Parts: sequence; C-alpha cells; structure tokens
Amino acid sequence: MIPVFILHGPNLNLLGEREPGIYGQVSLPDINLRLIESGMQMNFEVRFSQSNQEGTLIDYLQDARLWAKGGVFNPGGYSHTSIALRDTVAAIHIPVIEVHLSNIHAREEFRHRSMIAPACAGTIAGFGWRSYHLGLVALQGLLSQD
Amino acid sequence: MIPVFILHGPNLNLLGEREPGIYGQVSLPDINLRLIESGMQMNFEVRFSQSNQEGTLIDYLQDARLWAKGGVFNPGGYSHTSIALRDTVAAIHIPVIEVHLSNIHAREEFRHRSMIAPACAGTIAGFGWRSYHLGLVALQGLLSQD
Amino acid sequence: MIPVFILHGPNLNLLGEREPGIYGQVSLPDINLRLIESGMQMNFEVRFSQSNQEGTLIDYLQDARLWAKGGVFNPGGYSHTSIALRDTVAAIHIPVIEVHLSNIHAREEFRHRSMIAPACAGTIAGFGWRSYHLGLVALQGLLSQD
Amino acid sequence: MIPVFILHGPNLNLLGEREPGIYGQVSLPDINLRLIESGMQMNFEVRFSQSNQEGTLIDYLQDARLWAKGGVFNPGGYSHTSIALRDTVAAIHIPVIEVHLSNIHAREEFRHRSMIAPACAGTIAGFGWRSYHLGLVALQGLLSQD
Amino acid sequence: MIPVFILHGPNLNLLGEREPGIYGQVSLPDINLRLIESGMQMNFEVRFSQSNQEGTLIDYLQDARLWAKGGVFNPGGYSHTSIALRDTVAAIHIPVIEVHLSNIHAREEFRHRSMIAPACAGTIAGFGWRSYHLGLVALQGLLSQD
Amino acid sequence: MIPVFILHGPNLNLLGEREPGIYGQVSLPDINLRLIESGMQMNFEVRFSQSNQEGTLIDYLQDARLWAKGGVFNPGGYSHTSIALRDTVAAIHIPVIEVHLSNIHAREEFRHRSMIAPACAGTIAGFGWRSYHLGLVALQGLLSQD
Amino acid sequence: MIPVFILHGPNLNLLGEREPGIYGQVSLPDINLRLIESGMQMNFEVRFSQSNQEGTLIDYLQDARLWAKGGVFNPGGYSHTSIALRDTVAAIHIPVIEVHLSNIHAREEFRHRSMIAPACAGTIAGFGWRSYHLGLVALQGLLSQD
Amino acid sequence: MIPVFILHGPNLNLLGEREPGIYGQVSLPDINLRLIESGMQMNFEVRFSQSNQEGTLIDYLQDARLWAKGGVFNPGGYSHTSIALRDTVAAIHIPVIEVHLSNIHAREEFRHRSMIAPACAGTIAGFGWRSYHLGLVALQGLLSQD
Amino acid sequence: MIPVFILHGPNLNLLGEREPGIYGQVSLPDINLRLIESGMQMNFEVRFSQSNQEGTLIDYLQDARLWAKGGVFNPGGYSHTSIALRDTVAAIHIPVIEVHLSNIHAREEFRHRSMIAPACAGTIAGFGWRSYHLGLVALQGLLSQD
Amino acid sequence: MIPVFILHGPNLNLLGEREPGIYGQVSLPDINLRLIESGMQMNFEVRFSQSNQEGTLIDYLQDARLWAKGGVFNPGGYSHTSIALRDTVAAIHIPVIEVHLSNIHAREEFRHRSMIAPACAGTIAGFGWRSYHLGLVALQGLLSQD
Amino acid sequence: MIPVFILHGPNLNLLGEREPGIYGQVSLPDINLRLIESGMQMNFEVRFSQSNQEGTLIDYLQDARLWAKGGVFNPGGYSHTSIALRDTVAAIHIPVIEVHLSNIHAREEFRHRSMIAPACAGTIAGFGWRSYHLGLVALQGLLSQD
Amino acid sequence: MIPVFILHGPNLNLLGEREPGIYGQVSLPDINLRLIESGMQMNFEVRFSQSNQEGTLIDYLQDARLWAKGGVFNPGGYSHTSIALRDTVAAIHIPVIEVHLSNIHAREEFRHRSMIAPACAGTIAGFGWRSYHLGLVALQGLLSQD
Repeated sequence: MIPVFILHGPNLNLLGEREPGIYGQVSLPDINLRLIESGMQMNFEVRFSQSNQEGTLIDYLQDARLWAKGGVFNPGGYSHTSIALRDTVAAIHIPVIEVHLSNIHAREEFRHRSMIAPACAGTIAGFGWRSYHLGLVALQGLLSQD
Repeated sequence: MIPVFILHGPNLNLLGEREPGIYGQVSLPDINLRLIESGMQMNFEVRFSQSNQEGTLIDYLQDARLWAKGGVFNPGGYSHTSIALRDTVAAIHIPVIEVHLSNIHAREEFRHRSMIAPACAGTIAGFGWRSYHLGLVALQGLLSQD
Repeated sequence: MIPVFILHGPNLNLLGEREPGIYGQVSLPDINLRLIESGMQMNFEVRFSQSNQEGTLIDYLQDARLWAKGGVFNPGGYSHTSIALRDTVAAIHIPVIEVHLSNIHAREEFRHRSMIAPACAGTIAGFGWRSYHLGLVALQGLLSQD
Repeated sequence: MIPVFILHGPNLNLLGEREPGIYGQVSLPDINLRLIESGMQMNFEVRFSQSNQEGTLIDYLQDARLWAKGGVFNPGGYSHTSIALRDTVAAIHIPVIEVHLSNIHAREEFRHRSMIAPACAGTIAGFGWRSYHLGLVALQGLLSQD
Repeated sequence: MIPVFILHGPNLNLLGEREPGIYGQVSLPDINLRLIESGMQMNFEVRFSQSNQEGTLIDYLQDARLWAKGGVFNPGGYSHTSIALRDTVAAIHIPVIEVHLSNIHAREEFRHRSMIAPACAGTIAGFGWRSYHLGLVALQGLLSQD
Repeated sequence: MIPVFILHGPNLNLLGEREPGIYGQVSLPDINLRLIESGMQMNFEVRFSQSNQEGTLIDYLQDARLWAKGGVFNPGGYSHTSIALRDTVAAIHIPVIEVHLSNIHAREEFRHRSMIAPACAGTIAGFGWRSYHLGLVALQGLLSQD
Repeated sequence: MIPVFILHGPNLNLLGEREPGIYGQVSLPDINLRLIESGMQMNFEVRFSQSNQEGTLIDYLQDARLWAKGGVFNPGGYSHTSIALRDTVAAIHIPVIEVHLSNIHAREEFRHRSMIAPACAGTIAGFGWRSYHLGLVALQGLLSQD
Repeated sequence: MIPVFILHGPNLNLLGEREPGIYGQVSLPDINLRLIESGMQMNFEVRFSQSNQEGTLIDYLQDARLWAKGGVFNPGGYSHTSIALRDTVAAIHIPVIEVHLSNIHAREEFRHRSMIAPACAGTIAGFGWRSYHLGLVALQGLLSQD
Repeated sequence: MIPVFILHGPNLNLLGEREPGIYGQVSLPDINLRLIESGMQMNFEVRFSQSNQEGTLIDYLQDARLWAKGGVFNPGGYSHTSIALRDTVAAIHIPVIEVHLSNIHAREEFRHRSMIAPACAGTIAGFGWRSYHLGLVALQGLLSQD
Repeated sequence: MIPVFILHGPNLNLLGEREPGIYGQVSLPDINLRLIESGMQMNFEVRFSQSNQEGTLIDYLQDARLWAKGGVFNPGGYSHTSIALRDTVAAIHIPVIEVHLSNIHAREEFRHRSMIAPACAGTIAGFGWRSYHLGLVALQGLLSQD
Repeated sequence: MIPVFILHGPNLNLLGEREPGIYGQVSLPDINLRLIESGMQMNFEVRFSQSNQEGTLIDYLQDARLWAKGGVFNPGGYSHTSIALRDTVAAIHIPVIEVHLSNIHAREEFRHRSMIAPACAGTIAGFGWRSYHLGLVALQGLLSQD
Repeated sequence: MIPVFILHGPNLNLLGEREPGIYGQVSLPDINLRLIESGMQMNFEVRFSQSNQEGTLIDYLQDARLWAKGGVFNPGGYSHTSIALRDTVAAIHIPVIEVHLSNIHAREEFRHRSMIAPACAGTIAGFGWRSYHLGLVALQGLLSQD
C-alpha cells in the first residue's frame, strides 16, 4: 500500500462542535475513520495528524517528505496568512493537495485568497468532509498519471 | 440514471492543441469520452456542451435547471469577470461545481479570483482533465448527501 | 404614439422564479404586460426584448437608434463589467435610462458601480418592477423637456 | 391625504443660480411648487425643508418618522460622506428615497458612491427637478404595494 | 465630586427604538439614569449632552475643557469621518474616552476605522450601555493614575 | 474699500491654546487684528467669522456671495472631508482662497488631500497666521488682474 | 498572396456616425476598402469581419488559426475586460496585433489597461483608421522577419 | 466563584521591561496579582496564562471552553494577523473580550485593524494594565446580563 | 540686501508659449523682471535660475545653501515624483517655499500630491506668476519671524 | 524634405548588447541607418539623438519644436515615471509618437502604464526596431492628414 | 569572546535540498560550520538555533537578550507576516540584523516587504550563505562603533 | 588588483552635514578614504564617483561595465523611483550591490520599496558608512564564488 498523509490545521479538532452550519456535524475522528476506508479502496495507507501550531504543521510536512508519496492538507486559518507553510510545500518534493470543508470563496473577503495554494498541486473546497475524500481521489490520479 | 451536465466554457474546444504545458495534451472529445465512462460508473447520464459565448453558457445553464440534477462547469476565462454567469448559477436551483484544469491560484494575479465560485457548491482546480472527474465524484456526494 | 424600447439583460427571463426575495415574484411577461399599459397612458408604443447575450444587447441598442426615441435598459449583471455596452449607449443618440429591480447599492460591493450608468441619461434602482415604470415616466419627462 | 416629506440637502437652496449647466435653471421654490402639484395628484400632502447642516437634516428625518409615511431625500454633497445620515435613515421606520438632480455616476469619481443609498428604499439620479417627481411616484408605489 | 461629561453623538437619542438588535432596547434617558448612579459611586458628577450636529459636539467638547476633568464620548456615525472632531479632542487637555455600544469591528468595513480614536486616551466597544459605564471606570483609573 | 471675508473653520477659535507647536501661539482675535490692518493697507474691508459647524460655514459662504468680492477660507478639519463645502465654493461666483496655518503636506496622510482646494482659486499652507495675510495679498492680485 | 485577417470588435460597425470627435468620420466599409488596397500592396489577401459578440470574436480567431498567417484585431470595449479573448489569442499560433483608433491612454482610466495586449505581438493606438494600416505594415515585418 | 481566564499573548511576559513608554512599567506578575484581587471582588476565579506561541494560545482557548464562563484575551502582535485565532474565538461558545494595553489606533497603520475583534464580544484598548481590569468588569456585565 | 533665490523647474522656460490656458501668457523673463522689482521692495536681492535637469536643480539648491537665506522653488513636473529633490530640500538648512502657477489640486489626480512639499516651509499654488511674488512675501515673513 | 526627429531615451545606446532576448540584437547605429533609409522613402529628413538624461531629453524636445514637423520618441525607462517629459510633449506643438521596442504590456506591471502616452499623438509597442519605422509611417499619415 | 546568536527561521533546516536554484546547495550544518570560523576571527562566540515555530523564535530572542550582545536573524517566511516577531526585536535591547539568502526584492511581490526589518539595526539580502557572514561583519561594526 | 566602483547617488556629497541624525557625521571624502583602505585589504582597486544627476549615474554605470568587475551603488533618492537606473543595472553584465546608509525600511513608507534592488545582486541597508564596506565584502564573495 502507498503511504500518504492527511494533515488537519488549526481548529479542525473541534469539528462537529464548531459552527456546524459552516463546517458540518461530523467529528474529526469520524471523518478520519471514513477516510481510512476510502484510502484502503485506493490502496492508500493513510496517516493522520492535526495541530493548531503553524510550526508543527511545517515540521510534519518536512517529515512527511521522507515517507509519504503525497498528501492532503487542510491548512484552516493559516491558509490565508502563512508564507512559511507555502515555502514548506514548495520545498518538499511530493504532491500536496489543499482542501477546505467550506466554500471559502463564498465567505469573508480575507478567506478568498490562499497563500498556500500556489505551491500545491491543486485545490478542492466546499464539499464538507468529502473534500478530503476528493483529495485522495485526486492524489490517486496524480500518482498514477497517464 | 441521473441526468447531469458538463459545461465547457471559452477556448476549451482547443484543448490538446492550446498551450499544452498548462492545459494538457488530451483533446476535448477524448476528455468527454472518459467522462461518459466515469459518469456511467456513478449512474450518471452525462450530457456535454461547449461554447465560447458567455450568453450561450447562460442559456444552457438556465435550460439545464429543467432537466438536470446538477452539473460540472468550467467557465474558463469568464470565471474571473462574469457577474452574469454568477447570477445564473445563483438563480437555478441545482448544484453547480466549478472546475479548472490548471491551478488558477498559481498563475497570473487576475486568475486567482473567481466571480462565479461564490454561487457554486464548491470548486476544484489543478488536476487537468481529472478535475472534471472529481467534479462528478463531488456531485455524486452532494446528491446522495448523508 | 412614440416608439420606445424596454430592454432586459441577462437572467431577467427567470424573474418570478429567481431569488424572489431579491427580485420579486412577478414574471417577466407579467411585468411587460403592466408596462404596455403604463406606456399607453404616456402615449408610448413600447417594444420589449430580452437577451442573455452581451453582444445581442449591443445589436439591439444599435438597431433601436433607428426607430426608437429612447428606451429603458436593465443591463443586469453586465452593468458592472461591460465597457462595450457603455460604448454602445454613448454611440447612439437617443436617451437610455438604466434601471435595476433591486437596490444595487445595498448589495455586494461589486454591484455598487455601474460601468454603463455614466453613458445613460439617468439611473433608477430598487423599486422592483416599478423601476421600469419609473423609467418610462422619466423618459416621458426627457422627451417633453420644458 | 398622505403626509410625506421632500428634504433638500446642502446648497440646493442655490438652485437655478448654481452651476446651471449641471443642476438646471429652475429655482428651489419653483421646484417645490411643481412638486406640491405633483403630490396632490397622488394624494400626497408634501412638506418641504432644506438645510445646509448635516445635523439639522438628521433632526428633520428623526422628526419626520413621527408624522410622515415616507419621503424623498436629496442629500447633496453629504451623500458621499455621511455615515450619520445613513444611520438615521436606517433608524427610522419609513421608506426614504434618495434622489439626485444630476447623474452622479457621470461626474467625479468621489460622487459615484453614496453612503446613504444602502439604507434607502431605492435611488433615482439624473433627471433634474423631475428626479423629485419620480421619487414621489416611486413612493406612491411603495405605499400602495401590490 | 469630580465633574465629568458623557457626550452622545448622532442618532443616539433614538436608542431603544433604533435597530434594537444592534443597539439594545434601553432608551437614552434610562441609560443616563444608570450612569448617574454609576458616576456617583465613583465620586463623579456626570453631565450629559446629546447632539446630532457635528459642530455642536465640537462646541461642547471645547466648552467642557473649561469645567470637566475628562469625559466619555460616543461619536456615533461621526467616528469614521470626522477629522474636525479628532482635532477638537487633540486640542483640549482633558482625557476623552471613545465608546461604542456595538462592536464596530464586527460590522461593515467602513465602521472598523475610527478617525477620532487616535486622539482619545482609549476606546471601548461592544458592551451596549455598559460601554459608557466602563468608560467611567476607565476615566476613574486615568484620573487616579498610580 | 472692497469688502472681503476671512472665514475660520472648526477649532480655530482655540488658536494660541491648541497644540501651539503646530498652530502657533497667537490667538484668533490677535490674528484678526493684524489682518484688519493688513487689509486696510490693501484697501480691503475685511469681515471675520468663525464656526465649528460645517453647515454654518456653508451658510456664511452662500451669504458672502451677495456682498463680498472674494475671501480667504481656512476650512480646518473639514478640508479633507467636505464635499458639501466644495460644492458651495463652486456654486458662488467669487474667488475663494484656501489657507492653512500648518504645512498640511508634512502631517498625517489624511491631511494631504483637500476636497475643497479644487474649487478654490488657489491654496496657501504652512505660514502660520501669515497664511491669511498671504491670502489677502493673493486676493488683491486676483481682483486687480492684469 | 498571404491570407491575413482584420477583425473589428464591438461598436466599430458604427464608425463614422459614433462619437466622430473620438473615432473619426470614416465609415467601416470605407476603412475596409482602404485596407484592401493597403494589403494588396503588401501582398496580403485581407479578409474582414466585425462582431459585437465576444464569443463570435473568439470563434473567428479560433477559425483564423486554420487559414491566416496573422491578423490585426481591434477588440474595442472588450480590450479592457476580456480574459477569454486574451486566452484565445494566446491559444492560437499566429501573430495578432492589437490596434485602437483612439489613443486609449489619453482617455478614461479604465481604458488604459488592455487585458488582451499581453498575448499580442504588439499594440498600436491613436492613429484613427491608419492604426489598421500600421497593423498591416507591422504584420508584414513580423512575417518577413530579418 | 465563577471561573474565567486571562490570556496574555506574545511578548507580554516582558512587560515592565519592554518599551515602557508604550506598555507601562508594571511587570506581568504584578498585573496578575492586581487582577486576582479585582476578580475576587467580582466573584471571579481568575486563571492566567501567557504564551508566545500562536498555536498554544489556540490550544488554551479551546481548552478554556470546557471550564471557563468567559475570558479576557490580549492577543498582542497576533491581533493583526491571526485568522486561526479568530476562528478559535468564533468556535468556542464563551464570551471573549479583546484587550490591549496601548491605544492601538494611535500607533502604526498595521495595528489599527484587529483580525480577532470581530469574533469577540467587545474590545478595550489604551488603558495600560487597567484594560484587563475593565475587561473583567465587562465580562461581569455580560455574564449577569439584564 | 538679503540674498534669496527663485528656482524654476522643467518646462518653465516655455512660459507664455506653453498651454497658456493653464500657465498664463507671460514669459519667464518678464516674470523674472517683475520679481526683481517685488524683491527690491522687500530688500531682497533675488537670483534666478531655471533648469530642465533634476540633478542640476539639486546642484543649485545645494549651492544656494552657501549664499542664500532662503528661496522660492517651482519644481514643475518633478514635484510629484522626485524624492531626490525632497531629500535636498531637507538637507539644506534654509527655508524653501514651493510654488506652482496653476492650482495643481484642480488638475489630474497625479498632480495632487507633491513629494517635495513635506520638506518645504510651506506651499502656494494657483496664482499664476503671482505665486512667486507670494513666495517672496512668505519668505519675508519667515525671515523676520516675530 | 520634411525634418523630423527620432529621439532615443535611456539605455538605448546599449542596444544589441543589452538583454537581447527582450530588445533584439541590432545596435543603435544600425537601427538609425535603417531609419534614415525608411525616412528618405517618406521624404523625411530624419535627425537622431540619444540621451540617458531626463532633462537633456526635455531640452531636445523643446528645441525640436523650432525645426521639426514631428518626431518619434522612445522614452525608455522614463516612460513610466516622468511627468516632466509628459509636460514637455504637451507643451510643444508638434506631433510626437511614443514607441517601444518590446511589448511593454507583456512585461512587469510597472511597465504597463506610460505617463507620457497621454500627451502623445499615439503609441506603438512590441515590434523591435520596426516600432520606429512604424512611428515614421504613422507620422507621415499625421502630417498628410486626409 | 563576545557571545552572539545566529537564528534560522522556518524551512532553513532544509537548506541544500530545498529549491537549490534559489537558496543554494550548502546544507545548514555546513553553513554553521563556516560561520563558527568566521565568528572566531571576529572574536565572536556564535551560538546557533533553528526553529519552524514562530513562538519558539520569539522565546529564543527573548532569552538571547540575557546573554548575547547581538545577533543575526533570518526570519524566513515569517519576515513578511509576523508582527509578533517585530515586537520581540523591538522589545529586547540588543542589535538584531535581518538577513536573507535570496534577494527577496527580486522575487514575488509579497516577499518585498519585511514586517521585521523596521525593528532591526539593518538588513542584508541576496548573498546566499554569505549573507550571514556579512551579518556578523556588520554586527562587529555596530558593537565597536566609532 | 581588481578594479571595482563605488557610486554615490544624489545628496550624498552633503554627508556629514545633512541630517546627521539619520546619515551620520562622517563626510563623503572621509568615507571614501576608509573604503580605499578596506578595498586594498581585499585586493580591490576602488574608484569613486558621485552625481546628483540620474542620467550621469546611468552613464557611469554603462561606462563601468567596460573596466570594472563589479560595484557598490547607493542610489539615494533615485532608489525608489528610477526604472531607468534599474534597466541600466540589468543591462550591464557585472554584479552591482545596492547599499543604503540608513535602514530605509524603518523610515517613510515610500522609502520601503527600491525599484533598483530587483536588478542588483543583493542589498545592504542600515549600517551607516559601513554599508559600503559590507558591500565590498559582499562583492569579494561574489567574485571569488565557491
């Protein structure tokens, strides 16, 4: 099986409880369970992590370059401000896909621009927990490029 | 089978020939063939259309509200300028998913913002012809909401 | 009777069905009927047209300069982006009045500015279908200037 | 008869004398006379006021909420700067219609945006003294909503 | 007892009636009564004034420099536009505290910036009528500096 | 003798006391005395007024058009915000010269632009009370044009 | 002879009649006649088209790539807004030269920037109908590069 | 007693030593001591924390939602940049009050806007260590709403 | 007599001939003659220079610091772009007064801001050749400060 | 023969050597030779000049107004910053045509706007040394206007 | 020997591997070795640290104020966003020099501005690993000021 | 010895006298003497020049490409405005290092951006006369690249 990561950024550990009108009612552990299953069907060994620390996310991505073939990353609120994370994604040589649960383009002006997206392979936003699932499907496509 | 549409905007009829470094080397008929197959596996009857005319795209979307359960839309260059298309997507009551072949966030500044995205269910960008495939998968999720 | 036009821009053919909270529940044919009546009381022979095509609206306005004494124009979503339509209104020598059903100044930032308004005789916004009626009254004033 | 107000903002007392190329040659008393007549035909008892004082206009609007069913307001130069007047219009529970004699969208950039318009029922601009008349017609429509 | 002022800007005389969802349901006289009581407990003789006139507020502040040891000022809609009021606060040599009933930073963009705040000792926003009370507590701290 | 006006805007009645580092230590009455003398040498009958009210300044300027040949105006803090005062200066047919005591271009960004200057004959800034004197000299030149 | 195109954008069919102070008094057919002659002297077989439709212009350019060696394009009002047309010019592999009759840099701010120019070989503006002629001369140079 | 938190952001551990002209000469432990006392008088059990880590502040706020009834938060330099912290404040269901020691509106432009304020109940700035005390008073008001 | 300079910037040698509607019909030598006379009445020995070279103007100002007590400077088109000239004025320790013949605030947007003004003692604009005369009067005031 | 000028701005003396990918490999003397020939065929006596000095270019243009019927000007890097040069072109009464070797609209953002273009008869950009040739052809058209 | 620090920000631990075209091919340990040597020649005892955590960098700088005489800091991606780090540098009383390996002014727009630079003694950018060496030389100069 | 240049821009000839708080008290000849010495230790033959003329600086840089191996350039006030100088630095094929005496990032907003820096090898700012010395050290590194 192909090792890939799913990395959750700040406040995503509160999913299910946090503003459910925007982010949905499913908790993070439940989402991860569903994604393990999705991943298995795509021959992915999915490893998960979550952190509220910008630097810990950087550390994680740097480490992942050593064992993963690619990953799905929801940078949460850091999406719109973090040049350091953008630099990390550009520095590692595995494809990273940015995902968002909500349609960030339909929310406040400052959420429309992602600083990290230009360094990613692609972006997916607006499909709730399924955004992660779509990220895995996309990763499968990228890794089996034809 | 569930009727859905895939709508291609301006210049997408040139795919395969047009700036292949950015847009890939597969032609539009070839993409459509692959998507018919993808759609069938998801129980979708996929209908296709392409136009270089902003107004014709509006007409098509308006019409689709009468027969489709949802659709995947690549507005091409109109993404960044068309309020009229945004109004159309907001006016019809079926989910529309915006897709782009290239990662628009990694290109010129004026391609970073989509005027249409806020009216869509979600957006997918950067995966070449597979962006459409992901759009269908996303649509499947939206229509079978759980 | 004095020939004048009422020209409806993109998505206005969906009136009554489209976001009724913003645009009202009266359909376009019903509005047109009321405006025929209004027009007759002002000695206007009112001709109607609607198009989702920017270029077709240009064609119509160009043609109208040959037979109409003036007109009422709702450019819809093109109001905020079309320099080509502004040029057309400036090019023809009959008074054109821009109208909007909703109060565009109370909506999204990008709807506050009309590119077409500077070339028009005046603007009216916020009164639902009655914006057209007020447009005809305004036209009557312009044509019987004292 | 229905009591309504027409409120003239700063410098409008100079009408007829002030830059007649932009504002026309009719004096404010003459305009008021014509509007009394217009109003009577619509069963309106029209009361007039004019002030160059931003605060006096606020006082007037606050007072009008106690006796008027609605009104027509030309905020003149305060249109583009007064948040206080906007707050007043939003605070009182009667419809206010913003009118301008000139087509403010065809003049200097800083006249294109009205701070007050978003709190009004609608706006009318560019028809000289007839803008007020159209405001009364619009008010009639709003009060006899069907 | 120490003489201080509480100065209410435009539209605050409508409190209780005006957009109660934003500004609360307590009337201005009721607020003043509560603040007299608050003031007494802090050994303050509180004098009140309200005006919708920018210039009258300037006059009041200028006069207050002759008899007050400091004051609490809610500039309302003038907060965001008045350089003249800012100059007045900078010109008088007593501490002035800017207060707002609503959290202006959570409202429209144009309410986020106060032109007057830079000349004030400090700012308090978002606590309804208690913002004034907090202003008095703050003033007490400033006057008994340790 | 030729009647002219000198009009002082908001907070100028505090001159001598207010931020003397910026505005100097001479009081307004003292300045006016000096200017009476200056004026007499130029055959000017100088009349003075000061107000903190934007609208009162408008009233004054409107009135001055009936008896003055021109005037010198220090709009103070209203310089940077008042479109209404600009409209007044543009509406009256006598030359008005804008003066400032301080060099507004060397202060905060928001003081660099005067909304009123474009409607004035010219501007003078940075010379303390002598800015008014220079305004009278300039007025003399304008009225005796050769 | 070498086949090339001259493509006229929106409102250019009104030449001669439309704002002659800006666009000159020669009609489009007359211009085309002159350009046929110019073209013949350069061994060009010139084909002409005009459309008010953005999408029709796209269709034309796409088609021209199959038979023309290059072309001269006046995008009119679409110059400043059309990313779709820019994409078309970038997609086809023949040189396109943007021309304007008026000096767009000496007109309104929004006409200063062309969205299409970056995809063209070069731009020519300000010489009336001769701008097209210069475009042909420029094309001749590009095609006979030395 | 009611459990509440006071959370100090980056660099506040240097208080007393750091730029005392701006931030005062009292150290953080001394401030905390005073606030314990203030809190006790309001029946608050106040718990303190300080961190220079954005993510640790997020962790703390997330944890506090489980035991605190509300809190006072000085986000320091993160105020102006952290969307992640804003999201945290919006995600937890207890009132948070933003405080600043200095009057941030009187400092550099980039300190005028707080990204976090819109998610807070209210803001207090400019009163040195007393800003925290006022925060507790405000919290008391919010929790004993009448 | 007190030595002072009058320095004319680029294109001022064309005065009388150059856009006389804006700059007047008097030639530079004629202006200089009038200013020699004005200067003599103020006990000034006025020396003149003109250059179209930014650097030559810098050289001149640097040299003038060695022999002049102050000067009047019309930087022409360099006013709006030259930081180097601003630095020179700030570097020399004699008062410099910026003057303009036309009212730059009533012309194109890019002429509204002077980069040099903040380093000058004050500015005078809009009085034709008399702006220089007013500059001398202002200089007289600055040098005989009381 | 008709005397005209071709004026080369800063760094154009390095042509052939300087960034040949952008500016081509032909040296300035070679270009001038070709243009002498082009000019002779149009009955032009072409005089050349080049300078790196903004002020020397101004001097040259001022002088040229005395002997030339028009000219072609490549302002190089000064195009985007020089208001002084713009003023010169506006001041002299002969047609000046701005030319650029590269397509400035396809380069860095700051090269898209020319400060000088609005004062010129027209602009030509993107055709290498042939831009000058086209400038002469354009000049011929302007001088033999029909 | 004088104790100084060299502090490496986010992603610098990947040097040698990360985008070598921009950042060079030397690894961080190798750079540190060279700098130990450089430092010894300047009588510096150099201590090194690296962190991807914004807050850990703050902690380090706060701690360094207790033992170091100054330091060299490469804030990496935090340079452009971190007000908290700027505040730290301003809070500690030892000189800090900002360095960058790449010439940040020649890269993306968002890298041109450093939020931290204004609080530093000076900045050095563009010399690869030698930027650190230059930082030490600069520090030597600052500490032996003459 | 290796020939290199040190080029001083506008107003640097006034060093020692000019705003010593910002630029230091050492004169330019004294600085040059120190740099001759520094240069000798690095085996550099340093040649100096200073000019207040933008064009003379361009001439100098163009000439230096013929004899120098590289250079250190302080463009002074032209740093922030000169595209022509940037083009020169880009056109010559020797490394140029931009230096500033003051920390330009800690001064006025308009000094934060250098137009010339992107074309330079690197930049150094804030170390007084030692910035030049550091420039030479940096040049040494660039020329002996390992």
